[in-house]
Amino acid sequence: MPGCGSVYIVGAGPGDPELITVKGLRLIEQADVVVYDRLVPRELLDHTKPGAELVYAGKKPGAHAMTQEEINRLLLKKACEGKTVVRLHGGDPYVFGRGEEECIYLRSHGVECEVVPGVTSAIAGAAYAGIPVTSRGLASSFAVATGKEAPGKPRRMVRYADIMKSVDTLVVLMGVGTLEKIVEEMLEGGIDPDLPVAVVENASTPRQRVVTGRLRDIAEKARRAGIQPPAVIVFGPTVKLRERLWKLS
Amino acid sequence: MPGCGSVYIVGAGPGDPELITVKGLRLIEQADVVVYDRLVPRELLDHTKPGAELVYAGKKPGAHAMTQEEINRLLLKKACEGKTVVRLHGGDPYVFGRGEEECIYLRSHGVECEVVPGVTSAIAGAAYAGIPVTSRGLASSFAVATGKEAPGKPRRMVRYADIMKSVDTLVVLMGVGTLEKIVEEMLEGGIDPDLPVAVVENASTPRQRVVTGRLRDIAEKARRAGIQPPAVIVFGPTVKLRERLWKLS
Repeated sequence: MPGCGSVYIVGAGPGDPELITVKGLRLIEQADVVVYDRLVPRELLDHTKPGAELVYAGKKPGAHAMTQEEINRLLLKKACEGKTVVRLHGGDPYVFGRGEEECIYLRSHGVECEVVPGVTSAIAGAAYAGIPVTSRGLASSFAVATGKEAPGKPRRMVRYADIMKSVDTLVVLMGVGTLEKIVEEMLEGGIDPDLPVAVVENASTPRQRVVTGRLRDIAEKARRAGIQPPAVIVFGPTVKLRERLWKLS
Repeated sequence: MPGCGSVYIVGAGPGDPELITVKGLRLIEQADVVVYDRLVPRELLDHTKPGAELVYAGKKPGAHAMTQEEINRLLLKKACEGKTVVRLHGGDPYVFGRGEEECIYLRSHGVECEVVPGVTSAIAGAAYAGIPVTSRGLASSFAVATGKEAPGKPRRMVRYADIMKSVDTLVVLMGVGTLEKIVEEMLEGGIDPDLPVAVVENASTPRQRVVTGRLRDIAEKARRAGIQPPAVIVFGPTVKLRERLWKLS
């Protein structure tokens, strides 16, 4: 739209501020407005230019700072004030980030929108715990699924046992609150109770904690350890490689 | 091991040199030795310091510059000359990159090894074609699988039809040469012939090309277009969002 600026939908990566892309950081440095999520490393905001406007649009379970519709409208409004806008998402904007909704909304209103991918915590969160999502001879495929279905969905979309039967590694995001149910569903679906599982809390940050176990005991172990969101849950045989990849000292 | 340097196993991202992480670029700038893959953007090597040693370890189908064992030994040798070594992988080192084999080898010889994740082409390659791997109400899970089984595997590990039945989006890497077989297997497995599919060649680079179609015609379309590796193949309903996310002008 004539006179409107651009919006960049940028992934901030999994937590360590150095894991943003070079392009993402450059765009933050150039932005007039940065609209950021709860899981975005705050250190990244120190790179904005003097006078840049910072807007918190974070959501946490049960409490929204802004609704998605409000975020969409804000991005459009700021862009059409002629500003360069960065919409900063934790992880990757297209991995359960709703970045595509923002981009579709902006384009439908004639505003340019560009997506800049980020390192997803689904893969990096596992890696920082010493767990590769693939490994020759052990894992030739992996899946990533949400731990909670979107409210109001017409049908149940994620069937964890079926996914676990078809791929070698399954990573569940946003699954701390539903871990017990996910495990129950997998066990009822015939998944091996001895399947290795790891839960990685605050992956790639100094506050990272890892709990490992088996399908049969991981929910109890995570509960006892007091694991809180955000956490990445990894199911599959490569979890065992942690013993050889993780610095235990 | 006393006297040995460190090895950083770094993901270079999907192709655009600006899509490496800030940490990855910093490590390249500091490295004494960079051992790099075929799919690493060459512009990144311009950031090495004067006198840094650059070693090409690329593989292409049917022709290896170095075997994995030779790469492992080279990394160990250079580290134990007291050097800081960056092993630079295309995409992410733990997504079919064998980075975990390198790290296990180094650690087993007492050398420090750190993995620095990269943006994987599985997600970013799709994004650069206007295709989100997840989308609210349309895709709550995605899988990533290799298009070719490792030679000498004791058993067949990837069953494409089963994966496609259990997740909403399937991304296949290294599947250009086997696309016809993968499609055939999916059709025989009962997957809808009208399933949207996209093939993204040289994703995120100026040479990017995209071919879209349906499961029933994508192999023919890709063949006619002369699609060559590297390419990312995306199966699932979010492929249709490209019409609303991709700048067609």
